[in-house]
Amino acid sequence: MKKKGLLFIISGPAGSGKGTIVKRVRELAEFDFSVSATTRSPRPGELEGVHYFFVGKQEFEEKIAAGEMLEYAEYVGNYYGTPKKPVEKALSAGKNMILDIDVQGALQVKEKLPEAIMVFVLPPDFATLMRRIRGRGTESPEIIDKRMQKARVELECFDQYDYIVTNRDNDVENAAQDVLAILKAETLKTFRNRDIKEHFFS
Amino acid sequence: MKKKGLLFIISGPAGSGKGTIVKRVRELAEFDFSVSATTRSPRPGELEGVHYFFVGKQEFEEKIAAGEMLEYAEYVGNYYGTPKKPVEKALSAGKNMILDIDVQGALQVKEKLPEAIMVFVLPPDFATLMRRIRGRGTESPEIIDKRMQKARVELECFDQYDYIVTNRDNDVENAAQDVLAILKAETLKTFRNRDIKEHFFS
Repeated sequence: MKKKGLLFIISGPAGSGKGTIVKRVRELAEFDFSVSATTRSPRPGELEGVHYFFVGKQEFEEKIAAGEMLEYAEYVGNYYGTPKKPVEKALSAGKNMILDIDVQGALQVKEKLPEAIMVFVLPPDFATLMRRIRGRGTESPEIIDKRMQKARVELECFDQYDYIVTNRDNDVENAAQDVLAILKAETLKTFRNRDIKEHFFS
Repeated sequence: MKKKGLLFIISGPAGSGKGTIVKRVRELAEFDFSVSATTRSPRPGELEGVHYFFVGKQEFEEKIAAGEMLEYAEYVGNYYGTPKKPVEKALSAGKNMILDIDVQGALQVKEKLPEAIMVFVLPPDFATLMRRIRGRGTESPEIIDKRMQKARVELECFDQYDYIVTNRDNDVENAAQDVLAILKAETLKTFRNRDIKEHFFS
Protein backbone atom coordinates (compact mmCIF):
# COMPACT_ATOMS: atom_id res chain seq x y z
CA MET A 1 0.00 0.00 0.00
CA LYS A 2 1.29 3.43 -0.96
CA LYS A 3 2.07 5.65 2.02
CA LYS A 4 -0.42 8.52 2.33
CA GLY A 5 0.76 12.02 1.49
CA LEU A 6 0.81 14.81 4.04
CA LEU A 7 -1.65 17.68 4.00
CA PHE A 8 -0.17 21.02 5.03
CA ILE A 9 -2.39 23.97 5.81
CA ILE A 10 -0.70 27.35 5.93
CA SER A 11 -2.45 30.43 7.32
CA GLY A 12 -1.30 33.80 8.51
CA PRO A 13 -2.51 37.38 8.77
CA ALA A 14 -1.66 40.28 6.47
CA GLY A 15 2.05 40.98 6.30
CA SER A 16 3.08 37.47 7.31
CA GLY A 17 4.61 36.81 3.90
CA LYS A 18 2.72 33.52 3.81
CA GLY A 19 2.20 33.59 0.03
CA THR A 20 5.91 34.11 -0.69
CA ILE A 21 6.87 31.43 1.82
CA VAL A 22 4.49 28.90 0.24
CA LYS A 23 5.92 29.74 -3.19
CA ARG A 24 9.47 29.12 -1.95
CA VAL A 25 8.47 25.89 -0.18
CA ARG A 26 7.00 24.63 -3.45
CA GLU A 27 10.28 25.36 -5.21
CA LEU A 28 12.19 23.31 -2.64
CA ALA A 29 9.86 20.36 -2.11
CA GLU A 30 7.22 18.60 -4.12
CA PHE A 31 3.76 19.63 -3.12
CA ASP A 32 0.57 19.32 -5.09
CA PHE A 33 -1.71 22.28 -4.83
CA SER A 34 -5.45 22.26 -4.88
CA VAL A 35 -7.60 24.15 -7.33
CA SER A 36 -10.41 26.07 -5.65
CA ALA A 37 -14.00 26.04 -6.80
CA THR A 38 -15.95 29.27 -7.21
CA THR A 39 -19.31 30.49 -8.36
CA ARG A 40 -17.95 33.71 -9.79
CA SER A 41 -17.52 34.04 -13.56
CA PRO A 42 -14.15 33.30 -15.15
CA ARG A 43 -12.06 36.37 -15.93
CA PRO A 44 -10.33 36.63 -19.29
CA GLY A 45 -7.51 34.10 -19.46
CA GLU A 46 -8.70 32.02 -16.48
CA LEU A 47 -8.91 28.33 -17.29
CA GLU A 48 -11.33 25.76 -15.90
CA GLY A 49 -9.48 23.32 -13.61
CA VAL A 50 -6.34 25.43 -13.67
CA HIS A 51 -7.20 28.69 -11.95
CA TYR A 52 -10.55 27.56 -10.63
CA PHE A 53 -13.30 25.04 -11.06
CA PHE A 54 -16.14 27.27 -12.18
CA VAL A 55 -19.48 25.95 -10.92
CA GLY A 56 -22.99 27.26 -10.63
CA LYS A 57 -24.42 28.46 -7.33
CA GLN A 58 -26.85 25.55 -7.06
CA GLU A 59 -24.11 23.02 -7.78
CA PHE A 60 -21.85 24.62 -5.17
CA GLU A 61 -24.61 24.50 -2.57
CA GLU A 62 -25.31 20.84 -3.40
CA LYS A 63 -21.61 20.09 -2.90
CA ILE A 64 -21.69 21.82 0.49
CA ALA A 65 -24.76 19.82 1.50
CA ALA A 66 -23.14 16.57 0.34
CA GLY A 67 -20.03 17.31 2.41
CA GLU A 68 -17.93 17.55 -0.72
CA MET A 69 -16.32 20.87 0.18
CA LEU A 70 -13.39 20.75 2.60
CA GLU A 71 -13.98 24.39 3.37
CA TYR A 72 -15.80 27.30 1.79
CA ALA A 73 -16.71 30.92 2.33
CA GLU A 74 -18.97 33.49 0.76
CA TYR A 75 -17.34 36.69 -0.48
CA VAL A 76 -19.12 39.56 -2.23
CA GLY A 77 -22.01 37.29 -3.18
CA ASN A 78 -19.93 34.39 -4.50
CA TYR A 79 -18.80 31.12 -3.01
CA TYR A 80 -15.15 30.10 -2.91
CA GLY A 81 -13.96 26.79 -1.55
CA THR A 82 -11.76 23.70 -1.68
CA PRO A 83 -13.30 20.54 -3.18
CA LYS A 84 -12.59 17.49 -1.04
CA LYS A 85 -12.17 14.78 -3.70
CA PRO A 86 -9.04 16.04 -5.51
CA VAL A 87 -7.31 16.55 -2.15
CA GLU A 88 -8.17 13.05 -0.94
CA LYS A 89 -7.14 11.57 -4.26
CA ALA A 90 -3.71 13.24 -4.23
CA LEU A 91 -3.09 12.24 -0.60
CA SER A 92 -4.06 8.62 -1.32
CA ALA A 93 -1.61 8.62 -4.23
CA GLY A 94 1.13 9.54 -1.73
CA LYS A 95 1.43 13.17 -2.82
CA ASN A 96 1.99 15.90 -0.26
CA MET A 97 -0.37 18.85 -0.52
CA ILE A 98 -0.24 22.40 0.69
CA LEU A 99 -3.29 24.60 1.16
CA ASP A 100 -2.81 28.32 1.59
CA ILE A 101 -6.05 29.35 3.27
CA ASP A 102 -7.34 31.72 5.91
CA VAL A 103 -8.02 30.69 9.50
CA GLN A 104 -11.75 30.27 8.98
CA GLY A 105 -11.16 27.82 6.11
CA ALA A 106 -8.26 26.10 7.86
CA LEU A 107 -10.35 25.19 10.88
CA GLN A 108 -13.04 23.74 8.60
CA VAL A 109 -10.43 21.52 6.92
CA LYS A 110 -8.95 20.41 10.26
CA GLU A 111 -12.42 19.30 11.34
CA LYS A 112 -12.88 17.17 8.22
CA LEU A 113 -9.29 15.94 7.92
CA PRO A 114 -7.83 15.91 11.45
CA GLU A 115 -4.52 14.54 10.14
CA ALA A 116 -3.86 17.91 8.46
CA ILE A 117 -0.69 19.61 9.65
CA MET A 118 -1.51 23.18 10.55
CA VAL A 119 1.15 25.86 10.24
CA PHE A 120 0.57 29.46 11.26
CA VAL A 121 2.85 32.13 9.82
CA LEU A 122 3.43 35.23 11.92
CA PRO A 123 4.52 38.58 10.46
CA PRO A 124 7.97 39.78 11.54
CA ASP A 125 6.43 42.23 14.02
CA PHE A 126 3.41 44.32 14.84
CA ALA A 127 4.66 47.27 12.74
CA THR A 128 4.80 45.12 9.59
CA LEU A 129 1.30 43.84 10.28
CA MET A 130 0.02 47.42 10.66
CA ARG A 131 1.84 48.60 7.52
CA ARG A 132 0.15 45.87 5.51
CA ILE A 133 -3.22 46.55 7.07
CA ARG A 134 -3.00 50.28 6.35
CA GLY A 135 -2.03 49.55 2.76
CA ARG A 136 -0.99 52.48 0.59
CA GLY A 137 -2.75 54.99 2.82
CA THR A 138 -5.70 55.27 0.46
CA GLU A 139 -8.03 52.88 2.27
CA SER A 140 -11.04 54.10 4.21
CA PRO A 141 -11.02 53.82 8.02
CA GLU A 142 -13.76 51.17 7.69
CA ILE A 143 -11.60 48.91 5.55
CA ILE A 144 -8.60 49.35 7.84
CA ASP A 145 -10.80 48.57 10.84
CA LYS A 146 -12.14 45.44 9.15
CA ARG A 147 -8.65 44.22 8.24
CA MET A 148 -7.40 44.94 11.74
CA GLN A 149 -10.26 42.96 13.21
CA LYS A 150 -9.59 40.03 10.88
CA ALA A 151 -5.89 40.02 11.83
CA ARG A 152 -6.77 40.05 15.52
CA VAL A 153 -9.23 37.16 15.13
CA GLU A 154 -6.62 35.21 13.16
CA LEU A 155 -3.95 35.82 15.79
CA GLU A 156 -6.39 34.73 18.50
CA CYS A 157 -6.79 31.39 16.70
CA PHE A 158 -3.14 30.54 16.38
CA ASP A 159 -3.09 28.04 19.23
CA GLN A 160 -5.36 25.81 17.18
CA TYR A 161 -2.40 25.36 14.84
CA ASP A 162 0.30 22.73 15.32
CA TYR A 163 3.27 24.91 14.45
CA ILE A 164 4.15 28.60 14.47
CA VAL A 165 6.62 29.89 11.91
CA THR A 166 7.75 33.47 12.40
CA ASN A 167 8.81 35.34 9.30
CA ARG A 168 11.62 37.05 11.25
CA ASP A 169 13.26 40.06 9.55
CA ASN A 170 11.20 39.14 6.48
CA ASP A 171 13.65 36.28 5.85
CA VAL A 172 11.54 34.13 3.55
CA GLU A 173 14.28 31.55 3.05
CA ASN A 174 14.54 30.94 6.76
CA ALA A 175 10.77 30.60 7.15
CA ALA A 176 10.64 28.22 4.16
CA GLN A 177 13.35 26.08 5.77
CA ASP A 178 11.26 25.98 8.93
CA VAL A 179 8.33 24.59 6.94
CA LEU A 180 10.62 22.00 5.30
CA ALA A 181 11.92 20.92 8.72
CA ILE A 182 8.31 20.44 9.82
CA LEU A 183 7.67 18.38 6.68
CA LYS A 184 10.69 16.19 7.36
CA ALA A 185 9.89 15.73 11.04
CA GLU A 186 6.25 14.89 10.30
CA THR A 187 7.39 12.30 7.76
CA LEU A 188 9.53 10.67 10.49
CA LYS A 189 6.70 10.42 13.00
CA THR A 190 6.28 6.89 14.27
CA PHE A 191 2.57 6.62 13.50
CA ARG A 192 3.34 7.23 9.83
CA ASN A 193 6.00 4.49 9.84
CA ARG A 194 4.44 1.54 11.61
CA ASP A 195 4.96 -0.54 8.49
CA ILE A 196 8.75 -0.44 9.01
CA LYS A 197 8.54 -2.92 11.87
CA GLU A 198 6.71 -5.53 9.84
CA HIS A 199 9.19 -5.16 6.99
CA PHE A 200 12.27 -5.19 9.17
CA PHE A 201 12.26 -8.86 10.11
CA SER A 202 10.96 -10.11 6.78
CA MET B 1 10.77 33.57 31.92
CA LYS B 2 13.41 31.61 30.07
CA LYS B 3 11.97 29.13 27.59
CA LYS B 4 12.48 25.53 28.70
CA GLY B 5 15.01 23.44 26.81
CA LEU B 6 14.04 20.30 24.92
CA LEU B 7 14.90 16.82 26.14
CA PHE B 8 15.79 14.38 23.38
CA ILE B 9 16.01 10.66 24.07
CA ILE B 10 17.74 8.58 21.42
CA SER B 11 17.58 4.79 21.43
CA GLY B 12 18.28 2.13 18.87
CA PRO B 13 19.40 -1.48 18.64
CA ALA B 14 22.86 -2.78 17.80
CA GLY B 15 24.03 -1.63 14.37
CA SER B 16 21.79 1.43 14.30
CA GLY B 17 24.78 3.77 14.39
CA LYS B 18 23.04 5.69 17.15
CA GLY B 19 26.26 6.63 18.94
CA THR B 20 27.83 8.11 15.81
CA ILE B 21 24.60 9.95 14.94
CA VAL B 22 24.39 11.49 18.42
CA LYS B 23 28.04 12.56 18.15
CA ARG B 24 27.34 14.27 14.80
CA VAL B 25 24.16 15.93 16.09
CA ARG B 26 26.17 17.38 18.98
CA GLU B 27 28.67 18.84 16.51
CA LEU B 28 25.86 20.56 14.59
CA ALA B 29 23.63 21.78 17.41
CA GLU B 30 24.08 22.74 21.01
CA PHE B 31 23.01 19.98 23.35
CA ASP B 32 23.98 19.46 26.95
CA PHE B 33 24.65 15.86 27.85
CA SER B 34 23.96 14.21 31.15
CA VAL B 35 26.55 12.49 33.30
CA SER B 36 25.41 9.07 34.50
CA ALA B 37 25.71 7.85 38.07
CA THR B 38 27.14 4.41 38.84
CA THR B 39 28.05 2.26 41.80
CA ARG B 40 31.01 0.67 40.07
CA SER B 41 34.52 1.81 40.97
CA PRO B 42 36.23 4.45 38.84
CA ARG B 43 38.69 3.10 36.30
CA PRO B 44 42.07 4.78 35.90
CA GLY B 45 41.61 8.19 34.30
CA GLU B 46 37.86 8.42 34.96
CA LEU B 47 36.88 11.67 36.66
CA GLU B 48 34.04 12.27 39.13
CA GLY B 49 31.31 14.38 37.51
CA VAL B 50 32.89 14.06 34.07
CA HIS B 51 32.70 10.40 33.13
CA TYR B 52 30.38 9.39 35.95
CA PHE B 53 29.10 10.39 39.32
CA PHE B 54 30.53 7.61 41.46
CA VAL B 55 28.23 6.80 44.36
CA GLY B 56 27.86 4.02 46.91
CA LYS B 57 25.25 1.31 46.53
CA GLN B 58 23.24 2.53 49.50
CA GLU B 59 23.28 6.12 48.25
CA PHE B 60 22.14 4.96 44.80
CA GLU B 61 19.28 2.98 46.29
CA GLU B 62 18.24 5.96 48.39
CA LYS B 63 18.19 8.11 45.25
CA ILE B 64 15.99 5.51 43.53
CA ALA B 65 13.62 5.47 46.49
CA ALA B 66 13.49 9.27 46.57
CA GLY B 67 12.61 9.39 42.85
CA GLU B 68 15.86 11.15 42.07
CA MET B 69 16.87 8.80 39.26
CA LEU B 70 15.25 9.46 35.87
CA GLU B 71 16.11 5.89 34.91
CA TYR B 72 18.44 3.17 36.12
CA ALA B 73 19.42 -0.43 35.49
CA GLU B 74 21.53 -3.05 37.21
CA TYR B 75 24.34 -4.55 35.16
CA VAL B 76 26.80 -7.19 36.43
CA GLY B 77 26.06 -6.31 40.04
CA ASN B 78 26.32 -2.52 39.66
CA TYR B 79 23.77 0.24 39.20
CA TYR B 80 23.92 2.68 36.33
CA GLY B 81 21.47 5.54 35.89
CA THR B 82 20.62 9.12 35.02
CA PRO B 83 20.22 11.55 37.94
CA LYS B 84 17.13 13.72 37.57
CA LYS B 85 18.31 17.03 39.07
CA PRO B 86 21.05 17.98 36.56
CA VAL B 87 18.67 17.24 33.66
CA GLU B 88 15.86 19.35 35.12
CA LYS B 89 18.32 22.15 35.94
CA ALA B 90 19.69 22.27 32.39
CA LEU B 91 16.18 22.22 30.86
CA SER B 92 14.99 25.02 33.15
CA ALA B 93 18.01 27.08 32.07
CA GLY B 94 16.77 26.72 28.47
CA LYS B 95 19.41 24.20 27.41
CA ASN B 96 18.52 21.33 25.10
CA MET B 97 19.61 17.91 26.28
CA ILE B 98 20.17 14.62 24.55
CA LEU B 99 20.17 11.27 26.32
CA ASP B 100 21.57 8.26 24.51
CA ILE B 101 19.95 5.39 26.40
CA ASP B 102 18.45 1.97 25.79
CA VAL B 103 14.73 1.35 25.41
CA GLN B 104 14.26 0.18 28.99
CA GLY B 105 15.79 3.41 30.32
CA ALA B 106 14.06 5.58 27.74
CA LEU B 107 10.61 4.39 28.77
CA GLN B 108 11.43 5.14 32.42
CA VAL B 109 12.41 8.71 31.48
CA LYS B 110 9.27 9.21 29.38
CA GLU B 111 7.16 8.21 32.37
CA LYS B 112 8.85 10.79 34.61
CA LEU B 113 9.24 13.53 31.97
CA PRO B 114 6.43 13.07 29.44
CA GLU B 115 7.59 16.12 27.47
CA ALA B 116 10.69 14.16 26.39
CA ILE B 117 11.02 13.80 22.63
CA MET B 118 11.68 10.15 21.84
CA VAL B 119 13.66 9.24 18.74
CA PHE B 120 14.28 5.64 17.71
CA VAL B 121 17.16 4.93 15.34
CA LEU B 122 16.84 1.93 13.04
CA PRO B 123 19.83 0.12 11.52
CA PRO B 124 20.07 0.35 7.72
CA ASP B 125 18.69 -3.19 7.36
CA PHE B 126 18.33 -6.56 8.99
CA ALA B 127 21.71 -7.78 7.65
CA THR B 128 23.53 -4.90 9.39
CA LEU B 129 21.70 -5.63 12.61
CA MET B 130 22.72 -9.32 12.41
CA ARG B 131 26.32 -8.48 11.57
CA ARG B 132 26.57 -6.30 14.65
CA ILE B 133 24.85 -8.89 16.79
CA ARG B 134 27.18 -11.67 15.65
CA GLY B 135 30.20 -9.46 16.27
CA ARG B 136 33.58 -10.76 15.18
CA GLY B 137 32.39 -14.33 15.11
CA THR B 138 34.04 -15.16 18.41
CA GLU B 139 30.95 -14.77 20.59
CA SER B 140 29.23 -17.77 22.16
CA PRO B 141 25.77 -18.76 20.85
CA GLU B 142 24.38 -17.68 24.23
CA ILE B 143 25.66 -14.14 23.89
CA ILE B 144 24.42 -13.90 20.31
CA ASP B 145 21.03 -15.20 21.44
CA LYS B 146 20.88 -12.66 24.24
CA ARG B 147 21.77 -9.76 21.92
CA MET B 148 19.27 -10.95 19.35
CA GLN B 149 16.55 -11.07 21.97
CA LYS B 150 17.42 -7.58 23.19
CA ALA B 151 17.28 -6.21 19.64
CA ARG B 152 13.88 -7.84 19.08
CA VAL B 153 12.49 -6.42 22.32
CA GLU B 154 13.83 -2.97 21.40
CA LEU B 155 12.30 -3.14 17.92
CA GLU B 156 8.99 -4.21 19.44
CA CYS B 157 8.98 -1.03 21.55
CA PHE B 158 9.55 1.40 18.75
CA ASP B 159 5.98 2.58 18.51
CA GLN B 160 6.34 4.07 21.96
CA TYR B 161 8.73 6.54 20.37
CA ASP B 162 7.66 9.78 18.70
CA TYR B 163 9.96 9.61 15.69
CA ILE B 164 11.78 6.92 13.69
CA VAL B 165 15.06 7.80 12.04
CA THR B 166 16.45 5.17 9.69
CA ASN B 167 20.22 5.12 9.27
CA ARG B 168 19.81 4.33 5.55
CA ASP B 169 22.95 3.14 3.75
CA ASN B 170 24.83 3.98 6.95
CA ASP B 171 24.56 7.65 5.98
CA VAL B 172 25.21 9.24 9.37
CA GLU B 173 25.00 12.79 7.99
CA ASN B 174 21.53 12.19 6.63
CA ALA B 175 20.32 10.65 9.88
CA ALA B 176 21.84 13.53 11.88
CA GLN B 177 19.99 16.02 9.63
CA ASP B 178 16.78 14.12 10.35
CA VAL B 179 17.34 14.61 14.08
CA LEU B 180 18.05 18.32 13.53
CA ALA B 181 14.81 18.69 11.53
CA ILE B 182 12.96 17.10 14.44
CA LEU B 183 14.64 19.55 16.82
CA LYS B 184 13.64 22.51 14.64
CA ALA B 185 10.06 21.32 14.18
CA GLU B 186 9.63 20.62 17.90
CA THR B 187 10.92 24.12 18.65
CA LEU B 188 8.21 25.53 16.35
CA LYS B 189 5.35 23.63 18.01
CA THR B 190 2.61 25.98 19.09
CA PHE B 191 2.44 24.77 22.68
CA ARG B 192 6.06 25.83 23.13
CA ASN B 193 5.33 29.30 21.72
CA ARG B 194 2.16 30.45 23.42
CA ASP B 195 4.05 33.45 24.78
CA ILE B 196 4.35 34.90 21.25
CA LYS B 197 0.69 35.91 21.21
CA GLU B 198 0.95 37.96 24.37
CA HIS B 199 4.07 39.71 23.11
CA PHE B 200 2.71 40.41 19.65
CA PHE B 201 0.22 43.12 20.56
CA SER B 202 2.34 44.67 23.30
